[in-house]
Amino acid sequence: MDHNNWIKKEFRKLSQSLGFRYIPEKEIENRLKKVRGGMEKQGIEALLVIQKMDFYYLSGTTQDGFLFLPLEGKPLLMVKRELERARVESPLEEVVSFKSVRDIPSLIQRHRRKLPRNVGLEFDLLPVRDYFKFLEIFPGITLKDSSAVFREVRKIKSPVEIDLIRRTGEIGRKVYQEARKILKEGMTEIEFGGLLEAAAKRYGHEGLLRVRSLNYEAYTWHVLSGPTGGIVSQSDSPMGGLGLSPAFPVGASLRKIRAREPILVDFGICYHGYQADQTRMFSIGKMKKKLINAYEACCEIHDAVLEEVKPGANCEAIFAKTLRLAKKLGYKGSYLGPPGLQTHFIGHGIGLELNELPFIAHGHSYPLEEGMTFAIEPKIVFPGEGAVGLENTVAVTKDGYEILTPVEQGIFQV
Amino acid sequence: MDHNNWIKKEFRKLSQSLGFRYIPEKEIENRLKKVRGGMEKQGIEALLVIQKMDFYYLSGTTQDGFLFLPLEGKPLLMVKRELERARVESPLEEVVSFKSVRDIPSLIQRHRRKLPRNVGLEFDLLPVRDYFKFLEIFPGITLKDSSAVFREVRKIKSPVEIDLIRRTGEIGRKVYQEARKILKEGMTEIEFGGLLEAAAKRYGHEGLLRVRSLNYEAYTWHVLSGPTGGIVSQSDSPMGGLGLSPAFPVGASLRKIRAREPILVDFGICYHGYQADQTRMFSIGKMKKKLINAYEACCEIHDAVLEEVKPGANCEAIFAKTLRLAKKLGYKGSYLGPPGLQTHFIGHGIGLELNELPFIAHGHSYPLEEGMTFAIEPKIVFPGEGAVGLENTVAVTKDGYEILTPVEQGIFQV
Repeated sequence: MDHNNWIKKEFRKLSQSLGFRYIPEKEIENRLKKVRGGMEKQGIEALLVIQKMDFYYLSGTTQDGFLFLPLEGKPLLMVKRELERARVESPLEEVVSFKSVRDIPSLIQRHRRKLPRNVGLEFDLLPVRDYFKFLEIFPGITLKDSSAVFREVRKIKSPVEIDLIRRTGEIGRKVYQEARKILKEGMTEIEFGGLLEAAAKRYGHEGLLRVRSLNYEAYTWHVLSGPTGGIVSQSDSPMGGLGLSPAFPVGASLRKIRAREPILVDFGICYHGYQADQTRMFSIGKMKKKLINAYEACCEIHDAVLEEVKPGANCEAIFAKTLRLAKKLGYKGSYLGPPGLQTHFIGHGIGLELNELPFIAHGHSYPLEEGMTFAIEPKIVFPGEGAVGLENTVAVTKDGYEILTPVEQGIFQV
Repeated sequence: MDHNNWIKKEFRKLSQSLGFRYIPEKEIENRLKKVRGGMEKQGIEALLVIQKMDFYYLSGTTQDGFLFLPLEGKPLLMVKRELERARVESPLEEVVSFKSVRDIPSLIQRHRRKLPRNVGLEFDLLPVRDYFKFLEIFPGITLKDSSAVFREVRKIKSPVEIDLIRRTGEIGRKVYQEARKILKEGMTEIEFGGLLEAAAKRYGHEGLLRVRSLNYEAYTWHVLSGPTGGIVSQSDSPMGGLGLSPAFPVGASLRKIRAREPILVDFGICYHGYQADQTRMFSIGKMKKKLINAYEACCEIHDAVLEEVKPGANCEAIFAKTLRLAKKLGYKGSYLGPPGLQTHFIGHGIGLELNELPFIAHGHSYPLEEGMTFAIEPKIVFPGEGAVGLENTVAVTKDGYEILTPVEQGIFQV
């Protein structure tokens, strides 16, 4: 059978019967409008959207290609390989194929007649080599940085987006329920982590987590037991863990999990591109009183953050409040990492990427707004002994918050 | 306990008891020498190495930081967060900490006294925003593209690297052995893929696969059954599969695997950063004769490639030979994808990244060299019905090849 005919006839039916949710046309329209508002403020006449998550955000598809978005007129979706599938996935009207980036100006001219005077590109990730290529392809056109436009618009989630994160959180609830049955003494961290991941995938977890960064790699299997919980590593996290090698020096290791030690399971999940992050503690038998107390301090700090969460609350002030509380509770030197290696945030915005706005952090003095979603993660670290913590993903509502990760709270003791 | 003291006293012992292999000093010295040869040819006086895999290649660690490598004199490893761990992981002598990229020039001056006239950076991935920052930080210094240096040097693997890929291949052998016991009728593709991944992790698979690209995401769970094997998607592969959503439109889906259909398991594995790629076919009961014949054609093409593999053989000529053979065997319109969507390579270099040199492909007219490692993957695709294929990773030896993926050949029928 011809591939394109098969896609046209069978693809939507098959994909939807297997749980695919396509981003509705109305939702894409709203996003385009907000992004255009941002472009206007920055004096950008047109965007060429390249980065995968920005591209998905505005087109509904992640097929390989570029999206040309002028301030006025229809956006043009240019697809390199799988045109017919992009046509099913995206509600955009103008979807064309192209072979080489050098075809882009003529495609734009055919579609819109006049080239813009400037084009916005995502300078926070666009490789230098591609930038030089675009300078050649667009002679006389100024290239501007569009990353702030996306960063600003994407920090407020729509009800459609929050609904997807809620579904991601629901996968988490099921995974943590199964986790109690999976965990056994003598299992390695990575074996436990791998089986949790397999469970999550069964429910639609997409495996990859995404961070907006050249080098930062996110992963699902952040399972740390006893002393590996006390190890700082490359990631900007209170504890990175041991990992599996110098090439992957973070997350679960081949260490065997023992009874009575803290087992921290920080498990990010991704569903339809939307991520939710959560952390719960496990132990086989009871862990030491010192660690239980520290876990309870994390719960207190977590709840103290929630008390503040509503539109208008200042992110930096919330962070400062947690520092004062951690100090009062006796964890000044272990809150958010060991001395000298402490991180400076208690919350990170989350959505298509794990490092979106807002940050509940030092230096982030701006207000929370309705529709923001972020993970709150107080953690306490004792080198040589282990780490404890609690984490939930929340959405800011009109007058407070909604927890999007409905996993039962408390230590999962098996 | 103090974190840094704990790292100094306990870390090497713990990590090595859990299977960590550190890159030996002699190996790093050889790599530095080869990279310096490449710098000289390109007129680059010093490199600032940023990209994670280039950084690991030359330093032995992936802790967050930069490596400054002058043509002469000792390299300077600058570490942002976990200095003590980097000191354990890297055999380099000069390892210092830094807070901000703006400190780099003064650190270099302290270490080497004179700044170079030009600095090489990886323009193939370095974000434009960082490029502009470096222009500011290094006034009067020319920034040059260093990516070709890495691409050329890294295409030839040392015995240490080939040994790591061999160990990766050994994990694959164990996973495919277990796979026969895991596969059951009615299981979804992603459930099967997730359990294979969990098995691989138990043996040290690092979970992430790496591709040198802004947007291309690799993944382990490329399990396609029946019609999903006939679907092309965003990836440059004969078939992408259905995937889990428009945000992740490749690889295993929630489709239930049925009896008598082709089940393609293309499973990449990563151990200590080094990857091996392999594909085997599974079926529950016997698959249709048409598909068995096509699989046998893939075996014939695979073996025809192997016949040619030795130093001096031309990569493009090998690719052309497979086109002729596929046509002769009656698969002109299905070899490497459906008509109009066929890929133009039968092999891709593999190591720390999945898209290294050499490519056994159209337009790649250069000779194979001893020490090259690549995956050979003939595949045949029938839209609506499924895909079959075979894949192995091989190393070019002095007078032929070594297969690094020792998984049993033939269809795994359960």
